[in-house]
Amino acid sequence: MSQPWSRRFDSPLHPVIDGFNASIGFDLVLLPVDVRGSQAHARMLARQGIITAQEGEQLVQGLAQIQQEYQQGTFPAQGEDVHFAVERRLTELVGAVGKKLHTARSRNDQVATDLRLYLREAIDSVTEQLRQLQRVLWGVAADHVETLIPGYTHLQRAQPVSLAHHLLAYFEMFQRDKMRLGEIRQRVNVSPLGAGALAGTTFPIDREYTAELLGFQGVCANSLDAVSDRDFVVEFLTAASLILVHLSRMSEELILWSSQEFGFIQWQDSCATGSSMMPQKKNPDVPELVRGKTGRVFGHLQAMLVILKGLPLAYNKDLQEDKEIVFDTVKTLQDCLAAMTVVWQEGIVFQEQRLARAVGEDLSNATDVADYLATKGVPFREAYQITGQIVKFCVQSGRLLKDLTLIEWQEFHGDFGADIYQAITPEQGVARRNSLGGTGFDQVRLALARAQAQCG
Amino acid sequence: MSQPWSRRFDSPLHPVIDGFNASIGFDLVLLPVDVRGSQAHARMLARQGIITAQEGEQLVQGLAQIQQEYQQGTFPAQGEDVHFAVERRLTELVGAVGKKLHTARSRNDQVATDLRLYLREAIDSVTEQLRQLQRVLWGVAADHVETLIPGYTHLQRAQPVSLAHHLLAYFEMFQRDKMRLGEIRQRVNVSPLGAGALAGTTFPIDREYTAELLGFQGVCANSLDAVSDRDFVVEFLTAASLILVHLSRMSEELILWSSQEFGFIQWQDSCATGSSMMPQKKNPDVPELVRGKTGRVFGHLQAMLVILKGLPLAYNKDLQEDKEIVFDTVKTLQDCLAAMTVVWQEGIVFQEQRLARAVGEDLSNATDVADYLATKGVPFREAYQITGQIVKFCVQSGRLLKDLTLIEWQEFHGDFGADIYQAITPEQGVARRNSLGGTGFDQVRLALARAQAQCG
Amino acid sequence: MSQPWSRRFDSPLHPVIDGFNASIGFDLVLLPVDVRGSQAHARMLARQGIITAQEGEQLVQGLAQIQQEYQQGTFPAQGEDVHFAVERRLTELVGAVGKKLHTARSRNDQVATDLRLYLREAIDSVTEQLRQLQRVLWGVAADHVETLIPGYTHLQRAQPVSLAHHLLAYFEMFQRDKMRLGEIRQRVNVSPLGAGALAGTTFPIDREYTAELLGFQGVCANSLDAVSDRDFVVEFLTAASLILVHLSRMSEELILWSSQEFGFIQWQDSCATGSSMMPQKKNPDVPELVRGKTGRVFGHLQAMLVILKGLPLAYNKDLQEDKEIVFDTVKTLQDCLAAMTVVWQEGIVFQEQRLARAVGEDLSNATDVADYLATKGVPFREAYQITGQIVKFCVQSGRLLKDLTLIEWQEFHGDFGADIYQAITPEQGVARRNSLGGTGFDQVRLALARAQAQCG
Amino acid sequence: MSQPWSRRFDSPLHPVIDGFNASIGFDLVLLPVDVRGSQAHARMLARQGIITAQEGEQLVQGLAQIQQEYQQGTFPAQGEDVHFAVERRLTELVGAVGKKLHTARSRNDQVATDLRLYLREAIDSVTEQLRQLQRVLWGVAADHVETLIPGYTHLQRAQPVSLAHHLLAYFEMFQRDKMRLGEIRQRVNVSPLGAGALAGTTFPIDREYTAELLGFQGVCANSLDAVSDRDFVVEFLTAASLILVHLSRMSEELILWSSQEFGFIQWQDSCATGSSMMPQKKNPDVPELVRGKTGRVFGHLQAMLVILKGLPLAYNKDLQEDKEIVFDTVKTLQDCLAAMTVVWQEGIVFQEQRLARAVGEDLSNATDVADYLATKGVPFREAYQITGQIVKFCVQSGRLLKDLTLIEWQEFHGDFGADIYQAITPEQGVARRNSLGGTGFDQVRLALARAQAQCG
Repeated sequence: MSQPWSRRFDSPLHPVIDGFNASIGFDLVLLPVDVRGSQAHARMLARQGIITAQEGEQLVQGLAQIQQEYQQGTFPAQGEDVHFAVERRLTELVGAVGKKLHTARSRNDQVATDLRLYLREAIDSVTEQLRQLQRVLWGVAADHVETLIPGYTHLQRAQPVSLAHHLLAYFEMFQRDKMRLGEIRQRVNVSPLGAGALAGTTFPIDREYTAELLGFQGVCANSLDAVSDRDFVVEFLTAASLILVHLSRMSEELILWSSQEFGFIQWQDSCATGSSMMPQKKNPDVPELVRGKTGRVFGHLQAMLVILKGLPLAYNKDLQEDKEIVFDTVKTLQDCLAAMTVVWQEGIVFQEQRLARAVGEDLSNATDVADYLATKGVPFREAYQITGQIVKFCVQSGRLLKDLTLIEWQEFHGDFGADIYQAITPEQGVARRNSLGGTGFDQVRLALARAQAQCG
Repeated sequence: MSQPWSRRFDSPLHPVIDGFNASIGFDLVLLPVDVRGSQAHARMLARQGIITAQEGEQLVQGLAQIQQEYQQGTFPAQGEDVHFAVERRLTELVGAVGKKLHTARSRNDQVATDLRLYLREAIDSVTEQLRQLQRVLWGVAADHVETLIPGYTHLQRAQPVSLAHHLLAYFEMFQRDKMRLGEIRQRVNVSPLGAGALAGTTFPIDREYTAELLGFQGVCANSLDAVSDRDFVVEFLTAASLILVHLSRMSEELILWSSQEFGFIQWQDSCATGSSMMPQKKNPDVPELVRGKTGRVFGHLQAMLVILKGLPLAYNKDLQEDKEIVFDTVKTLQDCLAAMTVVWQEGIVFQEQRLARAVGEDLSNATDVADYLATKGVPFREAYQITGQIVKFCVQSGRLLKDLTLIEWQEFHGDFGADIYQAITPEQGVARRNSLGGTGFDQVRLALARAQAQCG
Repeated sequence: MSQPWSRRFDSPLHPVIDGFNASIGFDLVLLPVDVRGSQAHARMLARQGIITAQEGEQLVQGLAQIQQEYQQGTFPAQGEDVHFAVERRLTELVGAVGKKLHTARSRNDQVATDLRLYLREAIDSVTEQLRQLQRVLWGVAADHVETLIPGYTHLQRAQPVSLAHHLLAYFEMFQRDKMRLGEIRQRVNVSPLGAGALAGTTFPIDREYTAELLGFQGVCANSLDAVSDRDFVVEFLTAASLILVHLSRMSEELILWSSQEFGFIQWQDSCATGSSMMPQKKNPDVPELVRGKTGRVFGHLQAMLVILKGLPLAYNKDLQEDKEIVFDTVKTLQDCLAAMTVVWQEGIVFQEQRLARAVGEDLSNATDVADYLATKGVPFREAYQITGQIVKFCVQSGRLLKDLTLIEWQEFHGDFGADIYQAITPEQGVARRNSLGGTGFDQVRLALARAQAQCG
Repeated sequence: MSQPWSRRFDSPLHPVIDGFNASIGFDLVLLPVDVRGSQAHARMLARQGIITAQEGEQLVQGLAQIQQEYQQGTFPAQGEDVHFAVERRLTELVGAVGKKLHTARSRNDQVATDLRLYLREAIDSVTEQLRQLQRVLWGVAADHVETLIPGYTHLQRAQPVSLAHHLLAYFEMFQRDKMRLGEIRQRVNVSPLGAGALAGTTFPIDREYTAELLGFQGVCANSLDAVSDRDFVVEFLTAASLILVHLSRMSEELILWSSQEFGFIQWQDSCATGSSMMPQKKNPDVPELVRGKTGRVFGHLQAMLVILKGLPLAYNKDLQEDKEIVFDTVKTLQDCLAAMTVVWQEGIVFQEQRLARAVGEDLSNATDVADYLATKGVPFREAYQITGQIVKFCVQSGRLLKDLTLIEWQEFHGDFGADIYQAITPEQGVARRNSLGGTGFDQVRLALARAQAQCG
């Protein structure tokens, strides 16, 4: 019998069932935090006199050795899960005192503790990666304040904008992502240790002490809730989903921009891939994969919600499924952020000539015409209608607004003067959209300064 | 031609397309916030001298009349969407000045403003409902500090707990829900007004002034982001999903508890329903429906994420789909919370005799035996194994732990004394789990006091 | 007391609970099928002698009158749900005999019957819409066999294809959609009527007779399964999701194609919309909305799965949530298909000059070069590498393949002859990809002929 | 440079990007089908004279050796993906001829072929597992035709049913699952090989020959569709989700039945697990995990849909994400089905005494009373109301229906006779529900006979 359960069991597990239940195949990654949690627990047991000081020390030392074995790749990963594997190894190392470690503790509070410690570190790491990506974006933006790019709504050219302004939109998204992770971290960083199986324990433990040792900012207030709460996992998965939403939007744009039709960027060979059949191909694999992985993370979020729905209190084995979800989400996030950061660092080159041509070759300065009239007192909706007629005239005659003669302008409305030509250059259009948060160059420079502080 | 678009269009919309695009069928509910947004915009336009003070006043008055018409049910809901319906009606009411309202504004920033105002109110309303439900739960818990109920893990009886402690686990969940909503509210409560279509505007607007008039705590920093950001919707839908996770878990328990097998609660006639065929039935429809509606809200969350995935900047029409999602989620939340509050107020009666019988008839005091031995110095894992043997002995002989003779106890381990009988009563088991956050009666009373402050 | 439940209930429902449970607000749409189901049930009861022939006739007539009232909009929709509303109205119309209708029946088998009848009709209607859309697509394809369009992988130009070939890819998808719906229809079209609440009935009913009257092709074999099975709803929602996947891919292409950058299509005014602020805009709202509604339908699929997960047998009230999901999915499908059909009928015009220019201006004929060499005996992977060098040479010198001199060709490989120029024209490249299912014009004509039979 | 792409690339991939793009870490499992696909392709190339017969033989032999290396664990898994790894190893083994293998083929049609071959095998394996589970269930059902168990709706006791009838409800579900898989298999089993990158090929290939060699029943009709279609993956994931829905419902019942409150089953030690802290615990881990894994599979379905949404034609790298989804879903299905089969084979024992007691101790025979009266001519709705009063009388006086005296019966309605006692025994209630598909013993025996044929 390999199970460490009580002697109320007569026969060993059927091998199929044993394999089905076991989590050691994926939860070993929790060993470092599991050991830290057990060390804190042992210290507390000794401090409270539940075990002797010497016993406490033996446990802490034995656990340290296990930590080392894990780092060196020699830890024997046997048993149902990481918790039992550690306890067994500990007993091998320190003898019978190892059997005292689980006093006043259950796997239910233990695994909740591990998951929170793991996720706290993951949040910190992802936050740092977001900051790194922001920094790289910031650098590209700073180089392109006066580079214009068509701004789109409905994927139709709407109004030109500063490329820096466009990139700072993503900066804002990542800023919110960091803020969200910070808030979630606070709810992650609360200790369930000491909640026992579900009801607390009869031993005189000190939960605040273990919480302090483990860097938690507080303790879960209700033992039933402590062992069955996975809200923080859902919150993290939502934050991850939103990061992927942002990266997928960015990816979509990178893919569009690298099409022959847009041609706004070129890929460096170090970040693009070829085709097995078509020799001319250079594919934007990274943003495509990131866009695809968005589905993966949304799927994980949905999976976790489904697992939680309708579970009666307190712990149920269904919750074991939370782990692979969390581990794969963390890895996916880290991989996508790392790859995207490299892409912005060295993978793409904006084609400035092409961009310059793009913003001058269409009717996306029509709003400037309407605004011009409105400024002269024509009610906006009327100015807009007049401009609509001018646009139609241009479309039908295959001309751009800048090509109209002053006489033609004035046939549409008497208020047009020679200054209309200046008002409708792309540069003017952008410069004059200087409302707070707008694309005007002054605004963009202010935004860059603020952004620098946020990712510094 | 019913569309108010520019005169570049020659022909009217095909009726099928017209019907397909129109949102007036569901977005009319935004009218109150749309009008408030427009009033703020008009005031700002006047203050900045973009229109005259008199024009501003006319617009504000006309909009006030529209608000009134809506309240009275006489507003003519015609056109593509609520925004055009209001603008048209305004022009009917105040004449040509109505055509100036849309100066320096786009539907893109307008609809984002509306949605944020709507959601801010919804968050406040849901938060208040959560507090109300907490209060009712608190009252039931306060009545049942010393009522014991089996505590479960894996739906197997684990250890008895105070019923109050069990109910306070839900209190904790709702407390987190309120906290989350509060954080999300801060990200909702930022003004996109003035971002224009995507790039800001050439008019000298004052975004901070409109933000202040509308009670926003700040302005969106980037115009492209302002019109295309729906993170706050996803965040709200996650908060909603978690509320439903909590309500669904509670529902599952109510359903279990009202089965003949559990029999822990009885339903009052005012809150249960019958069968069309089976005269004896009394069904817990409310928790079943709440559990079912959990899927609905999860579905809305996924829908919104799917909509956002891979959208290039800035506004795309796909985003119109956000509205029905938000409206239905808000309604579902409000309905579920209202119904559950009634259920806890008057719908169920705990069957105290049945509960008392339940906690005394099983082996869920086995951990107390192991703890008893561990306290006497037996290593926990050993104590646990000995207890396992005792449990097996009981199961095989069809007896409970309390029925063993002292001699029998001592055959298993010499450290058992006469105090074992006292140690394994359910009341003692609960009372002694007095670790912080545990089910011990003292802990529960402390928790109740803290909870009162949180829902007061 | 408005509930028709048994007299074991003393007090009426709390109004909040009443409103929460009631489904009459949305399930009235089932009235036509509900009445047909009840008529079949009444006929069977009479035929089996469970009620008299005269009673049977009275019920059938009364139900016919209700059907008429519903058509005329005069049916009084009162009560908890459509089933009770019909039964009450029936009893008003025909007196006490109305109380016999529910003999040997439960709402559980009744509502399952209604839903299946409703869905069978919906499937037929959607199938017909798919065929209609196929026909329209077929027509456009038939006009464009020799129009070339760039074919993409990774949104990079890969190889030119016949536009007809491209459109027929969608035709294939819709063909699969129809096939799937046909298979699902078979599982929908099975009668649960007579399964009772869950266990069958003690009355000597004839389930095969009611099945036949209602056009079902068989009866559900197990009564517990009959009332709790909603597999067919999930299957339908998946079929719907896949239809939306296909429409969303088509939408994405329409949106890309109508960008200024691609410029492959122009929108007719009857099917595009404008902007409230930018007079020049012409937006592809229909495909954007369709793309957005994809999330809505995916959400419904997930919602239904979540509802079903872990439900114990047999009927649970959670299942009431299936209805709004089904109704909204059917409507969404019908709306999207109708709108897309109009778009292809009259909404867009392919810009043939632009397309012709597009296929001649790039290196997407590079595979033809590699194939050319491979045909001459150069191992493909080597041919591919040589072509890669030629491509690089072109990119660096800003030339196209067709611009290379024969001498230049031969510097890369001696096997190049003068026929290389012919081999790399887009028309040749397309014509020669005449493998089965390929884009070669002969293949496309064969495919068109086959397709015509499939949508005829 | 490790990439086998064309020489248009100058520099190697950035290591982060290389790691991000590579799929060799998980797609190696496709090697067996990849090799078979390549062998078929090589045979066809030779048969068509595109390569020589000798070359064809060399390729086939080299590939056979690779297959062997893989089986023996010695295949060197290097490179971007399994396809390039095989091609490189092949060239090592057979020399330059290896470079001819990729003639007239692209990774796009190759990977689609692999996935379909893989999935076809997985479908066959899962179908066989379903049949196996059905057989085991059938055996348990056959032993329990006359064992009664409470039948539930709303988790309230409704009417007793034969345990065999209850189990056969699951048999029906699995029967549908098999049928669905069979239909999906037909759409999986179509060959994309020869579609090339997206447009077919200029070589005179024979797609029907490779299809035949690989056991496909036809070829994909459109090359663009062939390389970008993943409908069959979504269909498989839905079939998997429905299998999990069924297993999760079964799991929920097993969990309920093994609670102390229900006590309908006992777990054998070989299939249940213990607690780390509570010595008396015996937990139904298997059904809990299965229920949890339901979320996992729903998540995969959602992920795949999200990936496909809005992808332009034809192949996009996003699709690489389909593989891990498919692999994990197949493994999860296989694991869950295997574990559940063991559980039904040897894991649980029905507690017949407890079941017998359960069906006799409540008011779930009330419908029999109403039916009794309705049979005597009382309109059903009236009979139902009278029975409701009787039920209320019983509830208030704490009695069961069988305990009422004949005089008491007759006070409620004059038609009650002494035969009422016989009519309301559970056995009679079940026996008399002999309508087609009902729980009557005769019906159940018929159903068992039919079921035997379906799983034989």
